[in-house]
Amino acid sequence: MTNYVLNTWYPLAWSRDIGRALSSRRITGRDIVLYRTEQGWVAALDDVCPHRLLPLSMGKLKGDAIECGYHGLTFDCAGKCVRIPGQERIPPSAEVRSYPTHENMGLVWIWMGEPALADVSKVFDLPQYHDPKWSAVEGDALAIEANYLSLADNLCDPSHVSFVHLSTLGNAASEGVPVQFEQQAGKLLTWRWIIDAPAIPLFQTFGDFKGHVDRWHYYHYHAPSIAVVDFGSAATGIGAPEGRRDDCIQIYACHFITPVDEHRCIDHWLHVKNFQADEATNAAMSAEFRVAFNEDKAILEAIGRNERRLEGWKRVHLAIDGAPVRMRRMVDKLIEAERDAALPAREPMNPLRRQA
Amino acid sequence: MTNYVLNTWYPLAWSRDIGRALSSRRITGRDIVLYRTEQGWVAALDDVCPHRLLPLSMGKLKGDAIECGYHGLTFDCAGKCVRIPGQERIPPSAEVRSYPTHENMGLVWIWMGEPALADVSKVFDLPQYHDPKWSAVEGDALAIEANYLSLADNLCDPSHVSFVHLSTLGNAASEGVPVQFEQQAGKLLTWRWIIDAPAIPLFQTFGDFKGHVDRWHYYHYHAPSIAVVDFGSAATGIGAPEGRRDDCIQIYACHFITPVDEHRCIDHWLHVKNFQADEATNAAMSAEFRVAFNEDKAILEAIGRNERRLEGWKRVHLAIDGAPVRMRRMVDKLIEAERDAALPAREPMNPLRRQA
Amino acid sequence: MTNYVLNTWYPLAWSRDIGRALSSRRITGRDIVLYRTEQGWVAALDDVCPHRLLPLSMGKLKGDAIECGYHGLTFDCAGKCVRIPGQERIPPSAEVRSYPTHENMGLVWIWMGEPALADVSKVFDLPQYHDPKWSAVEGDALAIEANYLSLADNLCDPSHVSFVHLSTLGNAASEGVPVQFEQQAGKLLTWRWIIDAPAIPLFQTFGDFKGHVDRWHYYHYHAPSIAVVDFGSAATGIGAPEGRRDDCIQIYACHFITPVDEHRCIDHWLHVKNFQADEATNAAMSAEFRVAFNEDKAILEAIGRNERRLEGWKRVHLAIDGAPVRMRRMVDKLIEAERDAALPAREPMNPLRRQA
Repeated sequence: MTNYVLNTWYPLAWSRDIGRALSSRRITGRDIVLYRTEQGWVAALDDVCPHRLLPLSMGKLKGDAIECGYHGLTFDCAGKCVRIPGQERIPPSAEVRSYPTHENMGLVWIWMGEPALADVSKVFDLPQYHDPKWSAVEGDALAIEANYLSLADNLCDPSHVSFVHLSTLGNAASEGVPVQFEQQAGKLLTWRWIIDAPAIPLFQTFGDFKGHVDRWHYYHYHAPSIAVVDFGSAATGIGAPEGRRDDCIQIYACHFITPVDEHRCIDHWLHVKNFQADEATNAAMSAEFRVAFNEDKAILEAIGRNERRLEGWKRVHLAIDGAPVRMRRMVDKLIEAERDAALPAREPMNPLRRQA
Repeated sequence: MTNYVLNTWYPLAWSRDIGRALSSRRITGRDIVLYRTEQGWVAALDDVCPHRLLPLSMGKLKGDAIECGYHGLTFDCAGKCVRIPGQERIPPSAEVRSYPTHENMGLVWIWMGEPALADVSKVFDLPQYHDPKWSAVEGDALAIEANYLSLADNLCDPSHVSFVHLSTLGNAASEGVPVQFEQQAGKLLTWRWIIDAPAIPLFQTFGDFKGHVDRWHYYHYHAPSIAVVDFGSAATGIGAPEGRRDDCIQIYACHFITPVDEHRCIDHWLHVKNFQADEATNAAMSAEFRVAFNEDKAILEAIGRNERRLEGWKRVHLAIDGAPVRMRRMVDKLIEAERDAALPAREPMNPLRRQA
Repeated sequence: MTNYVLNTWYPLAWSRDIGRALSSRRITGRDIVLYRTEQGWVAALDDVCPHRLLPLSMGKLKGDAIECGYHGLTFDCAGKCVRIPGQERIPPSAEVRSYPTHENMGLVWIWMGEPALADVSKVFDLPQYHDPKWSAVEGDALAIEANYLSLADNLCDPSHVSFVHLSTLGNAASEGVPVQFEQQAGKLLTWRWIIDAPAIPLFQTFGDFKGHVDRWHYYHYHAPSIAVVDFGSAATGIGAPEGRRDDCIQIYACHFITPVDEHRCIDHWLHVKNFQADEATNAAMSAEFRVAFNEDKAILEAIGRNERRLEGWKRVHLAIDGAPVRMRRMVDKLIEAERDAALPAREPMNPLRRQA
């Protein structure tokens, strides 16, 4: 059985994709119907009518309520049943569970756990996203047939870049450079510097470096499913490693991961960079990233297939695994802590309890 | 494990589709090979050669016998092995089970249970089908990825029409009209009247009503897998509810369901109506029904997926469920009665016993 | 659980298909990466990096070593890890299992069992393949969705030819002719003669027979997965049955079967014949065989589906099953003998032990 952290804000969908049409998404193994209310906020309900189990997303939006497409049971945006055609009495059990949502950084975030604990001030934020000196470019919702923690491994692991992304984000200069990491409260920081080396292909295209550069990667992982990779380059000699990064190229690559179910996840990726560019340049940059992330996808899916096929296969642990091992322990601890806390936060057998 | 009523006549295929070519169909989880004998009746055998398990339908018809496509074992239309190339002796175990069949209303019916109990006078019949004042139009064999009882639910349930079939068979006028039902011997009758309402889209197209109509639905369910929906409309005021239906449009929509296996069924549908029409009008009407039944199919398949995914999900029961609940109890009782009767009628472990 | 004979040489791939590109094949349920070393022999390793389980075939060949595509772990062609980027120490567990290979008759053969027992003089050989008076024509690698022993059944069974291959390899004259067989050390010989009969379609095309012929089939099965069918025809009356076959057409149809996994196998087929022909004639002959072997494939796959669906179905045993029954007993005995011998030859739980 897959366990998930539930008392956390998960990214679920691009805000741009959620309007008045009913939309269905799966997260932590549950189907959720999403729609924007007349006032403009995003409602999220279990996508299951409790009568015959038809997905509510196959019904119709009537005002802010959903009418089931089979017999017309109607649920308001809090999940309360407000109409049953053919009978006056509405039984109290005729309800669906609703979920707190919040929008930030172009995404709809959802709280799958105990509603009373949902605090919108805890939704992830990157201040530079809102800073006019910086520029944000939205990417894709990349569907990957692998457990979301496999993608999290990848995002606590700068060393794969030298082998997976040779044509885009890495080059051979970094192959042997050791990785450092540090566990912090609720997060894990992994990083390395490559000093006095050629610029990577991406920055040869978009930067303007004459000679060698000093390059950095800081992978900020926020348990359980968010990673922001701060990476950049500055001309060697100007002192970037000591903190002088005025004249540099810097990008925050954001990976907001939806754990769809045990074997699938979605990587909502976007970039926040310290330089402006015209639309064509932004599109060209996103196209490069798309190539790189599809390289990761191919690897993670092949690994996922082998993990299922080769359970018990003898494995070897390496120095570069320090950060991923720590990451998985963090997630395990969060899940254990929730399991030990009040049962209502998990309620796997009675998923219809509505938000208080 | 799925249980089926076995001592009953099931619809299996359109008569028009069964000729001298070997044809394979699945019903109650068993593969059956069908073909028309030289005398013109339909033979039905287990579609499995007991030697290597090759489907007999991959073999050849030689006269009225099937020659297996692998080693030439030959079975007559009663399932008896009549030839084994390369040996004289035919062991008594070299046989396949044959099944009684009968044709009526354009369909081949099959008896999957105890052959001694197969009585062709019990094959379902609708007298109007044979009445020259009425007109029958054959529809399709609609394959649905859902258990046949989900479709039977739907066919004991007039109230879904107002929500699923708004563009064809229903309209909003009926949304709140309560449903009545009555259990009878081996059948269940569900009905409702909608008085003084606009005609439904289908009858606006094919009828000629100036004003409001009185509409009826009588769903005749015959356990386990036959439903005939008597529906029609008459001008309001002429007394149709009291029985005066001379000047009305009336259709018997027949749904003859094949329970293919636990997760699939086939709805053989046809219509018998009290008015004649040219071929183009009949085809246009069938096209309308096809739209409507595909609306049901989409819903039943989505429900089927969720039933498998969400076992144990908490559900709510409504007033409109009275008839479907009764229907399922009827089927359960039939299955229990068979289980309690003589074992030979079920023989799941020795399916090769031939018809006596 | 499927068991396989492991201490045997299995055919795995056409030599022509293995070069410097990494190539992945599955055999006995294991994925193997194959490549030709700089010296020209074929290296074979478990296609799994023991770090994250990425298939090594998704990496890169560097000299004769494979660099994993995820983090650059590098394994030499004996499976020893020779480099881990980012750390000096290479733990002894960082290795993958390598497998002995040998090439003969245009194929790469692999030894999946105890490496110490691999003796290349035991790789299957047909002397005529190397004889300039004979001519070899390579066929295909035909993938069949069935257990390899189902194909072996077929290749110990001359009698199916009269029913399956009427348009190519058989005709009705042989339907009732009994089959003989004889068990020998490690092999099984099955045969029959059809005397004074019309030539089969294939030999009507490629032979030059005026009248009736005497035809023979000798099926040489070498446990567990090799079959060579010696078949030919000579004009009736010249004494072919008594051994005078100077003026005859004779073909050795070789079937070198790879047991991919429980439900799949690959038939590498080729022909060695006692007459020369131009390329077009050879291609036409292969096309005929391709038709015939696809007839077998359709039957074996249908049987495979039914074997899985109808476990426990009551079956009948025939005189023609003598050879297949013996064949399966031979394979079972080989598997038992290995199970009783030293454990290291099987090591299912620690598959990473490297070749000594």
